[in-house]
Amino acid sequence: MESPKINFASDNYAGVHPAVMQAMVEVNQGPAVAYGGDEYTAAAIQQFKQHLGDTAEVFFVFNGTGANVSALCAMTQSHEAVICAEKAHIQVDECGAPEKIAGCKLLLVPDIQGKITIEGMQAQLQRIGDQHHVQARVVSISQSTEYGTVYTLNELQELAAFAKEHGLYVHMDGARLANAAASLQTDLKTIVDAAGVDVLSFGGTKNGMMLGEAVVFFTPLLAKSFLYMRKQNMQLASKMRFISAQFQALLSNDLSLKNARHANAMAQYLAQGLGKINSIQITHPVHANAIFAIMPPALIEKLHTRYHFHVWDERLSEVRLMTSFNTQPEEIDAFVRDIIE
Amino acid sequence: MESPKINFASDNYAGVHPAVMQAMVEVNQGPAVAYGGDEYTAAAIQQFKQHLGDTAEVFFVFNGTGANVSALCAMTQSHEAVICAEKAHIQVDECGAPEKIAGCKLLLVPDIQGKITIEGMQAQLQRIGDQHHVQARVVSISQSTEYGTVYTLNELQELAAFAKEHGLYVHMDGARLANAAASLQTDLKTIVDAAGVDVLSFGGTKNGMMLGEAVVFFTPLLAKSFLYMRKQNMQLASKMRFISAQFQALLSNDLSLKNARHANAMAQYLAQGLGKINSIQITHPVHANAIFAIMPPALIEKLHTRYHFHVWDERLSEVRLMTSFNTQPEEIDAFVRDIIE
Amino acid sequence: MESPKINFASDNYAGVHPAVMQAMVEVNQGPAVAYGGDEYTAAAIQQFKQHLGDTAEVFFVFNGTGANVSALCAMTQSHEAVICAEKAHIQVDECGAPEKIAGCKLLLVPDIQGKITIEGMQAQLQRIGDQHHVQARVVSISQSTEYGTVYTLNELQELAAFAKEHGLYVHMDGARLANAAASLQTDLKTIVDAAGVDVLSFGGTKNGMMLGEAVVFFTPLLAKSFLYMRKQNMQLASKMRFISAQFQALLSNDLSLKNARHANAMAQYLAQGLGKINSIQITHPVHANAIFAIMPPALIEKLHTRYHFHVWDERLSEVRLMTSFNTQPEEIDAFVRDIIE
Amino acid sequence: MESPKINFASDNYAGVHPAVMQAMVEVNQGPAVAYGGDEYTAAAIQQFKQHLGDTAEVFFVFNGTGANVSALCAMTQSHEAVICAEKAHIQVDECGAPEKIAGCKLLLVPDIQGKITIEGMQAQLQRIGDQHHVQARVVSISQSTEYGTVYTLNELQELAAFAKEHGLYVHMDGARLANAAASLQTDLKTIVDAAGVDVLSFGGTKNGMMLGEAVVFFTPLLAKSFLYMRKQNMQLASKMRFISAQFQALLSNDLSLKNARHANAMAQYLAQGLGKINSIQITHPVHANAIFAIMPPALIEKLHTRYHFHVWDERLSEVRLMTSFNTQPEEIDAFVRDIIE
Repeated sequence: MESPKINFASDNYAGVHPAVMQAMVEVNQGPAVAYGGDEYTAAAIQQFKQHLGDTAEVFFVFNGTGANVSALCAMTQSHEAVICAEKAHIQVDECGAPEKIAGCKLLLVPDIQGKITIEGMQAQLQRIGDQHHVQARVVSISQSTEYGTVYTLNELQELAAFAKEHGLYVHMDGARLANAAASLQTDLKTIVDAAGVDVLSFGGTKNGMMLGEAVVFFTPLLAKSFLYMRKQNMQLASKMRFISAQFQALLSNDLSLKNARHANAMAQYLAQGLGKINSIQITHPVHANAIFAIMPPALIEKLHTRYHFHVWDERLSEVRLMTSFNTQPEEIDAFVRDIIE
Repeated sequence: MESPKINFASDNYAGVHPAVMQAMVEVNQGPAVAYGGDEYTAAAIQQFKQHLGDTAEVFFVFNGTGANVSALCAMTQSHEAVICAEKAHIQVDECGAPEKIAGCKLLLVPDIQGKITIEGMQAQLQRIGDQHHVQARVVSISQSTEYGTVYTLNELQELAAFAKEHGLYVHMDGARLANAAASLQTDLKTIVDAAGVDVLSFGGTKNGMMLGEAVVFFTPLLAKSFLYMRKQNMQLASKMRFISAQFQALLSNDLSLKNARHANAMAQYLAQGLGKINSIQITHPVHANAIFAIMPPALIEKLHTRYHFHVWDERLSEVRLMTSFNTQPEEIDAFVRDIIE
Repeated sequence: MESPKINFASDNYAGVHPAVMQAMVEVNQGPAVAYGGDEYTAAAIQQFKQHLGDTAEVFFVFNGTGANVSALCAMTQSHEAVICAEKAHIQVDECGAPEKIAGCKLLLVPDIQGKITIEGMQAQLQRIGDQHHVQARVVSISQSTEYGTVYTLNELQELAAFAKEHGLYVHMDGARLANAAASLQTDLKTIVDAAGVDVLSFGGTKNGMMLGEAVVFFTPLLAKSFLYMRKQNMQLASKMRFISAQFQALLSNDLSLKNARHANAMAQYLAQGLGKINSIQITHPVHANAIFAIMPPALIEKLHTRYHFHVWDERLSEVRLMTSFNTQPEEIDAFVRDIIE
Repeated sequence: MESPKINFASDNYAGVHPAVMQAMVEVNQGPAVAYGGDEYTAAAIQQFKQHLGDTAEVFFVFNGTGANVSALCAMTQSHEAVICAEKAHIQVDECGAPEKIAGCKLLLVPDIQGKITIEGMQAQLQRIGDQHHVQARVVSISQSTEYGTVYTLNELQELAAFAKEHGLYVHMDGARLANAAASLQTDLKTIVDAAGVDVLSFGGTKNGMMLGEAVVFFTPLLAKSFLYMRKQNMQLASKMRFISAQFQALLSNDLSLKNARHANAMAQYLAQGLGKINSIQITHPVHANAIFAIMPPALIEKLHTRYHFHVWDERLSEVRLMTSFNTQPEEIDAFVRDIIE
């Protein structure tokens, strides 16, 4: 029998961390109040507050699109707009959900290595007060970015200052925030504070959970109606304890950070391996758990027989390789060996 | 330490059936293609087809609101309308999600014991072709109903004939379809066929799963764009195998039906117990796993110290008692005893 | 050649009052700043303030649906709901625009003679704070009502007190507010004040204009983003002076009230005529410019050959007869004569 | 008293052509069936068919945003997308109405002199069949463009061929289609046919009307539900005869084309005048009735005391000058003289 392909396609191809799975099994004892009224959810929220501050307001949802779009619903009216990178997940990978659900326009900024720039934001701050034009209200940044790069704390502070100066709320798509924290060797709160985040989408799924994301509000006013928005956006889990238990496991014993560190380390290890190969050119700095690389089409074809990974840009013959909490060094060794041979 | 309250509040308070949990643990082996491209999802869909026919098109989503609203998105344009019972879940328990997300109006029909009537539907079929008025396009029925009653096959056939005659699509909210099948001592397909269902929301969560519902299309044309709608409605699970595995467990070895039969039997047992008590009046026929009963306010207050259950209508002092796959006879005995004493 | 049918169908069948038409011709002199930046618009807004108070904020839109729905957009978030009469125009005659555009649910109240009741409102004030249920935020009343009845000032005060007590905003659909004012022998402001109106849709079209309605805010907070909402809702006229000029004419020399008084008087005259005929039964009090009456189907058929009017309820053989600013006594005489003969 | 400023700001600053105004006065005779059931509307639609072909289906709406957005509603589902120029009116001047009302995303293409390119369209045709990404379904082009340029028939044919090949519907924003026809010295149908237009927004307002646009369908399937969409999008005029009469006037005696020719000729005359001035640089070809030019900031300031016109790009000191059906040669002479002196 053929052995299954090795995964460098996505941290979504990874399974569930055993400690997270164990936590779900453990809370499966007797009944619990539905829709988040249970003690496990209360405890998981408490744990979030320990990481992110007592005033953080925390809501669990199903997936990343649900987190991002619901956050934007809370931050905008439909005539307002969201500034984001032109390759942001909310722009290119959510099938128009922000427009359909929040009703608002995304204003695109060319990115540098996946990062938004002050100049780009500035260019979209136009026609303020003009009734014919959408009014920029939010800047949404991804940390780490779609290209596996990580904003430095300094860069975040500059963005935050600009946003505050221009009356923009800051949304952070933190589907891989743990990877960014591991990369910066800091904690979640330091990143969130540096960026002056008003609303955070914190990702559990890619960090080792089965499913589940958190929408975390640092600006209480924006959270005012979020209970209803979550329900109306079809993101309210009835047996919520099973999402909460996962977050409890993830936020205990530094599991989130450990998973992220491992994934990042595997990316570095893979980058080292690829770096030695002349026919391969890594196209973005490797800060977190993604590697983008140009490789010959014939090589891609050969590798695809044994490995899952995505061709990112067909024209350039550029691929994306993702590592995860359960990527094994042997898998990387095999991958590099298969390239060289 | 205080023992936890016994649950008659909701089948959502119940945990996960052990076989379902086991299935999730078992598929947590190595990587799997994300977003439903995995073999477990393919297998679960195949299993659905065995139950519901080869031409059924099956899509997994997160929750009941997601299933219902996405189904309605596929069945309507925003100027069209959905006829439903005035106490239907889509009307009273989804925080306006159908209006917000599908954009369409619900046309309400007074129900008899939770069931919609032909006369009620007829009354909403008005102003056809009048540009000022929404155009009825869908009838949505819940099987079993919000009141725990079950449409007979004969009733479903009559509704279906009426719908077909008037060009209405049929949506079935089957959050508790297994309970209806158990009640009617038939299988899912017989019910679906009798009702001429175009799109079904099939409920896993209340039937013993952790989370997960299926949107099943019997009219292929309506499924055409559903892949995109699911994503745009924020209902696409990345690690979908963990929803699929649950459905596989549920649809294997008759587990779905067994769970439903148990829940229904417990409801009958509870109804018998309550039926002997003079001060309590059961207000709806008990077909599935819900009991509605009027009881003295003082009794409600006393019982609430040991049992979870909802007051349904404060004015009437009417409560709702739900049983589930893991309701125990001893819990019912205790409840009845506590009433009598 | 056949003479055209006489109009009792709608005040929308009427043409434009000559003074209004004249005003449009007069402002057609040279260029004027577009989109409401012109002097005529400034003057018309000033005139509104004279009638409705200095703090009123006034925005012109194209039509009644545009006024009502845009007003509701300004008053609600999509998880909030609007309490209204089950026969309200926003419910039955706007093709689902409130649901599609504002995203919110309408909560229906059975009306008495077209009027909403405190008891009906009370019944819809349920599940406050429950995330599963839409939250009532607005009560919308029509003055005069769909049935041509007019709330007394006392009734309005009671509704307003109830709304205030329960944190509901008051929207008034004043498509025929002038007729109500004429009926109550008072001015617009007295009505608006009595009802504690937060946002008013003031109708110009049925009052003798070609087209144009005003959305008037008495609660400044709600007007904050309305400039953008009007544009986004496709209700911003580029050559706005031609709407403004109509309003100026209408609000000058008491034209609005005179038109309304005439229409109301014609309705009274018609009611008197019909009242003497045994086979006809007037079904609602005639306060403004509408008469609802049951008449034999054969008579309806005969009258339809010479007169425009709508059958309101086919089952009851009930018709609606509307008068307008240019209904002539002779037309009524002819109508009554044609019935009698 | 100060004389009013001369208008080069917009064809929306212009008033109403006398023949159009006269037509409105003339139809103000007695009652007419509301909502488009009148004879004037039937006649105006007939006239459109004479210009655009018998199979064209014609619907009148209030304004350009209403026409464009309603057309897009008819052409897309919310997960589909509209390819357009990055400076298209629907992108930059409609306050996000397409996203709010049609729910769909706009995919932006850099323009050359206001014109979309095949290469730009090609670049947006990506990830077809990928559930995570919006699916391009429509290309929307403006004729004449935002920059006053006009696609040649040849260019339109190439775009149409590309669109057809890739399954894209073609929407034409014809707010200034008459100017394009005048520029190309051809008729409306030739342009529409060359571009393979499925749905046309035909502009009356800028062409000399008071208000009113037409949505014209050449692909009957797309028109199927448009009656309801127009109403739901708040674009249905009750006293529609007054819009219809305007269109009748406009489409009679070549008035539309005459108005456009005059406006274009005035633009040419102005361009000639400006072309002789060294300090002024015209930045786009002058095909229709707009001129874009870079001029010294001090000059702009001086001219603004006597003339209305918009600064288009502050950074570049670029202004937009629009001519209209009632621009007078003397106004241009004065403008040029004021520059030179």
